[in-house]
Amino acid sequence: MSPFTGSAARTARWEHLRVELADGVATVTLARPEKLNALTFGAYADLRDLLAELSRERAVRALVLAGEGRGFCSGGDVDEIIGATLSLDTARLLDFNRMTGQVVRAVRECPFPVIAAVHGVAAGAGAVLALAADFRVADPSARFAFLFTRVGLSGGDMGAAYLLPRVVGLGHATRLLMLGEPVRAPEAERIGLISALADEGGADEAARSLARRLADGPALAYAQTKALLTAELDMPLAAAVELDAATQALLMNGEDYAEFHAAFTEKRPPKWRGR
Amino acid sequence: MSPFTGSAARTARWEHLRVELADGVATVTLARPEKLNALTFGAYADLRDLLAELSRERAVRALVLAGEGRGFCSGGDVDEIIGATLSLDTARLLDFNRMTGQVVRAVRECPFPVIAAVHGVAAGAGAVLALAADFRVADPSARFAFLFTRVGLSGGDMGAAYLLPRVVGLGHATRLLMLGEPVRAPEAERIGLISALADEGGADEAARSLARRLADGPALAYAQTKALLTAELDMPLAAAVELDAATQALLMNGEDYAEFHAAFTEKRPPKWRGR
Amino acid sequence: MSPFTGSAARTARWEHLRVELADGVATVTLARPEKLNALTFGAYADLRDLLAELSRERAVRALVLAGEGRGFCSGGDVDEIIGATLSLDTARLLDFNRMTGQVVRAVRECPFPVIAAVHGVAAGAGAVLALAADFRVADPSARFAFLFTRVGLSGGDMGAAYLLPRVVGLGHATRLLMLGEPVRAPEAERIGLISALADEGGADEAARSLARRLADGPALAYAQTKALLTAELDMPLAAAVELDAATQALLMNGEDYAEFHAAFTEKRPPKWRGR
Repeated sequence: MSPFTGSAARTARWEHLRVELADGVATVTLARPEKLNALTFGAYADLRDLLAELSRERAVRALVLAGEGRGFCSGGDVDEIIGATLSLDTARLLDFNRMTGQVVRAVRECPFPVIAAVHGVAAGAGAVLALAADFRVADPSARFAFLFTRVGLSGGDMGAAYLLPRVVGLGHATRLLMLGEPVRAPEAERIGLISALADEGGADEAARSLARRLADGPALAYAQTKALLTAELDMPLAAAVELDAATQALLMNGEDYAEFHAAFTEKRPPKWRGR
Repeated sequence: MSPFTGSAARTARWEHLRVELADGVATVTLARPEKLNALTFGAYADLRDLLAELSRERAVRALVLAGEGRGFCSGGDVDEIIGATLSLDTARLLDFNRMTGQVVRAVRECPFPVIAAVHGVAAGAGAVLALAADFRVADPSARFAFLFTRVGLSGGDMGAAYLLPRVVGLGHATRLLMLGEPVRAPEAERIGLISALADEGGADEAARSLARRLADGPALAYAQTKALLTAELDMPLAAAVELDAATQALLMNGEDYAEFHAAFTEKRPPKWRGR
Repeated sequence: MSPFTGSAARTARWEHLRVELADGVATVTLARPEKLNALTFGAYADLRDLLAELSRERAVRALVLAGEGRGFCSGGDVDEIIGATLSLDTARLLDFNRMTGQVVRAVRECPFPVIAAVHGVAAGAGAVLALAADFRVADPSARFAFLFTRVGLSGGDMGAAYLLPRVVGLGHATRLLMLGEPVRAPEAERIGLISALADEGGADEAARSLARRLADGPALAYAQTKALLTAELDMPLAAAVELDAATQALLMNGEDYAEFHAAFTEKRPPKWRGR
């Protein structure tokens, strides 16, 4: 993704998500609380398109993904997705499943950290959305469930069979994807599935606070850290150290690195510009 | 592996293993208890060939790998393997070591989940067999030891240097493969080496019960979950989400997915067909 | 790296490191305690060159990397590295960053186990040096901090974005590289970042003792275990089992394997030759 813009217009209104942007922090809220924020075709498409648009905005330096109401996201809607896909032809089924994978790629490839604020249920596609985020800030009510096999589908959905073994190891990942059993906060913390445990009811606030800190920091350094973590999962060591070398040489020419040194020398906190 | 059969006959009798098949669950028992189920050339070859044959049987939907007597498997027999290999020429040494690797590939690539039921010692090749399984159900007496360096060989045996870092991380894997020290059940659980801890003496029963559940479930969904977990360890994210998309599109055309939706709508449990 | 030598002379004196070699164990000490062993251009270059030279010495069978004084290593020196890089041109910046990556590759690719003995701070490049080692033996005072973003740089430095997710998983790695927060010994142990926890003040002694044991053992088996662990992070399973097969066939032709069998048969401990 790239900040260069051409003729394409910005989307005036996101119908399937609530989107706020304040001071470098975008907050995207799944806001269908009466359905536990179950995803629809429109919501997937909006997530994909929104992340592409935000990736062109220098204004966004961190993103919080949250769910309104009793939980984070219950996954694909049983009627509007599962029921609807039963009458789609093969080409459309592929279109749909590619789109969900594109959302995950967009989360991994957008040039700012994504923080999932998880309370209550994060199930199916909701669990994978959280998994694709850079940080999972959860409260004790959080419950992750990769329940794809429970509906007769593969546990490898939206990149889960790629991502989960790399987050919690192949043993836990096999168990979670194969059986679809819920992982509650203590286990999630023990196996490395969550980044931080907030107080009960405090996931949104903790995620916002982390986003604030990231947005106020050296944003280009964070963006490159994310890009390298994503890319180097798929690279051999020799290529990875070469990518690191080029990246650091680039950032050593940047403003924030010089600012760090100046601030250190002057014994004051650095004023990060994100450049 | 593929269920298509040609002219090759089924093996009438497995001489080096005990094999039972009941209601979709295959149970393979290493049954040389007087030698702690030490493996012989014949046992390796039977494991390789059996897994290939079972992969052609639609009848098998889950497999339990267990050991009779005091432990799971003490690895290659000191006399019948180590002693014997000392007089093999280089080509035969390669033949032997390729065969053991083929067993591990067969465990990873067969189209049904494999559950290792581990009590007592799982050492050397026995530890790698368990490691290659999808689930390791262990009781408190379980003791894993990757003791290859203890006999003067590389800790990277039968794919252990590939699999173990992906299960427990590179730090623990280095320690375990380099030093060959035993990992007891509590540590195995802490580092993610086992999937479930059973009561003392209860590993076989717990493994059978898990196999029962898997065999009664959406078997094609489980098979694809396993296939994707195996394949996506070796794929970049972009390819993984494409594989997921094609797989889900396929399964959304399958019977079990429609059955889930019908059952959900009719508020009854689904009757899985494994298709 | 290879033990073959050509015309190149051995380095007579390492000016930026303290190097000792006794009975198969090399001990490399970062010895600038007044600066918490902050690294300089010379120290990086010496580490790179020393590891290449030691890789040619059959005499070295294990290496301890330690820090003198209050901590292990505080990373790149704020003045001699950060300050100095501010006036380097792009080509020289790339030269510098490639060199640091070469040190990490040398640690991963040298044909003997490397044991980092960590007490106190292991920060920035110091944390990555420890991370690249095969074993991290730490005492309760150990404190790892990948603080690259704190100076405006990418957390992916010297292969950290490649190595750390493979050691502690992507979730923890993202948190540690993005935020640069210190990881103290208990957390380091919990997430698999350290190999062994020593008593307060006992990291050096515990590392020496482990090195002693490795140097007295089947050194070629250890070297191959390390080589395979390093290589197989970047290989698919099918290639990994083929590499394992060739490696074991090779070692089964070696002296130590025959010695193990002889010793076992004669009920005496093996006398390892490292061949």
